Amino acid sequence: MKRIEPSFESIQIAADVLRGVAHLTPVMTSQSIDRELSASFFFKCENFQRVGAFKFRGAYFAISQLSDEEKSRGVVTHSSGNHGQAVALAASMAGIPAWVVMPENAPMIKKKGVRAFCGTIVECESSQSGRESMLAKVAEETGAHYIPPYDDARVISGQGTCALELLSQVEELDIVMVPVGGGGLISGTALSVKHLRPECKVIGAEPDHADDAFRSFHEGSLQPLSGKKTIADGLRATLGKLPFEIIQSNVDEILTVKESSIIEAMRLIWERMKIIIEPSCAVPLAAVLDHPEQFAGHRVGLILTGGNVDLDRLPWNLSHE
Amino acid sequence: MKRIEPSFESIQIAADVLRGVAHLTPVMTSQSIDRELSASFFFKCENFQRVGAFKFRGAYFAISQLSDEEKSRGVVTHSSGNHGQAVALAASMAGIPAWVVMPENAPMIKKKGVRAFCGTIVECESSQSGRESMLAKVAEETGAHYIPPYDDARVISGQGTCALELLSQVEELDIVMVPVGGGGLISGTALSVKHLRPECKVIGAEPDHADDAFRSFHEGSLQPLSGKKTIADGLRATLGKLPFEIIQSNVDEILTVKESSIIEAMRLIWERMKIIIEPSCAVPLAAVLDHPEQFAGHRVGLILTGGNVDLDRLPWNLSHE
Repeated sequence: MKRIEPSFESIQIAADVLRGVAHLTPVMTSQSIDRELSASFFFKCENFQRVGAFKFRGAYFAISQLSDEEKSRGVVTHSSGNHGQAVALAASMAGIPAWVVMPENAPMIKKKGVRAFCGTIVECESSQSGRESMLAKVAEETGAHYIPPYDDARVISGQGTCALELLSQVEELDIVMVPVGGGGLISGTALSVKHLRPECKVIGAEPDHADDAFRSFHEGSLQPLSGKKTIADGLRATLGKLPFEIIQSNVDEILTVKESSIIEAMRLIWERMKIIIEPSCAVPLAAVLDHPEQFAGHRVGLILTGGNVDLDRLPWNLSHE
Repeated sequence: MKRIEPSFESIQIAADVLRGVAHLTPVMTSQSIDRELSASFFFKCENFQRVGAFKFRGAYFAISQLSDEEKSRGVVTHSSGNHGQAVALAASMAGIPAWVVMPENAPMIKKKGVRAFCGTIVECESSQSGRESMLAKVAEETGAHYIPPYDDARVISGQGTCALELLSQVEELDIVMVPVGGGGLISGTALSVKHLRPECKVIGAEPDHADDAFRSFHEGSLQPLSGKKTIADGLRATLGKLPFEIIQSNVDEILTVKESSIIEAMRLIWERMKIIIEPSCAVPLAAVLDHPEQFAGHRVGLILTGGNVDLDRLPWNLSHE
């Protein structure tokens, strides 16, 4: 494996690798949302990305950096979400096997996604330790290379290509916003934005119920994730070490949002823009709803991270909290 | 009012009027749908059009053709769907009043839509005669000009601009498909397609439960709408006289589809393409599901007509039939 440091240069390398492979996703706007929230929003539609999420970028780039010998043994990851599908598809494109460790109670729709991209699902107990021990076991038995979901220089570089594209598609952004889970997207985004447009703010958005990045950012040291449930299931991840280092010196602010605002923002985007986004993806717009004074009059880029949502279980049809 | 005949020329005039006013909507593709159905599909996304439906095109063009004197008295229409919103927005852009006659039991979401575009709602009894007598009453009292939903040369010309765009966006289409309700869209589409690319087939798609266009097409005379309910509420309209004339000489075929296929096609587009379409809009893809042999290997343009759907009442969450 080639060693890389996450930087603007590594993001440019990733962009070269991804050109013609990842979709160049469109930027959409909505006059009615702009009017309602008194700002100009530019939505980068990674819900239209391959596998329905930006995660494809990092997974594909990470796999592309393996040596032929490493590739021949395949890759392994753990994920109950979009990263698992992304690794499965990227591996299948590279013609190598992928094992995805998933809790035995993972939703059928997620398992179907991994299988659709020819990944092999390995079930594990639904706990951190159950997941880690199964991952280690598969890696040992198969020799497969581990592709982490976010705490990885290659993955961060891949995710950073999304903001690179956004800044080439929209001029003079004042703010770029992304949701924060493990921190892969926000750290890649911050590296791109601060290099290309230092005066543009980078703001992360996080559920109140999963505010470890917010607390870590303000206390200056990694804080544990609380046990509260959030509708934004894609953001139920502990902030990674490498992402946190990048966040500390490149991100301007992290805002937290109410659960009800996440649902309101998700529905606003569905109704006005006629596109499907998952709850995690609505968190940046929820931050605008909860903190409108910070955005009024500005040109704001938001990365819509993904569109994989169970249509039988939409949040406004469920009782929550 | 200027008199026009619906023709390729009147569609070109409409396209000039609509340039920079209507959105030039994107054409989307889906590798996974193409693979599954063994054809190449090009989806013209009128769900992203103003008011969330192609209906804006016809309504705006019709209003643009009124004299200043006619405009000064405003416009009136009846609609419990997208045409009402389209007339309200187009009138508001022209700075003139719009009255929209709606049944008193029309869904709140549709009423909200008309009000959002500054239209005045006039409630009527929920029957054909109740609607017609209220429309006549409003027209008489206000002098407002009636903008019909489809049986009108100006409206047909406006709707025809959509296929005009599609053919400039995608080359070498073998088939263009649209849903059929009152016939405004299919007749405008057929005029555009047969002028620009005579070898391209124009196929209409209609629910089994509202198959009056299918029966009229095959019997050579206008047949009444049956009373059956369909999930494709936007297509519960009797085929218009003028559209029928155009259909008879310009449309190649009308296919009917099962209710269950409409829901399956709608869900397929939501899940794979991450865009929101209403049930009526899924009818052409449902026709591909029900009649796959006619499409295999072809380049097929489908007009996705609209995205206005009640998110609290999605068809796969309802018991039907």
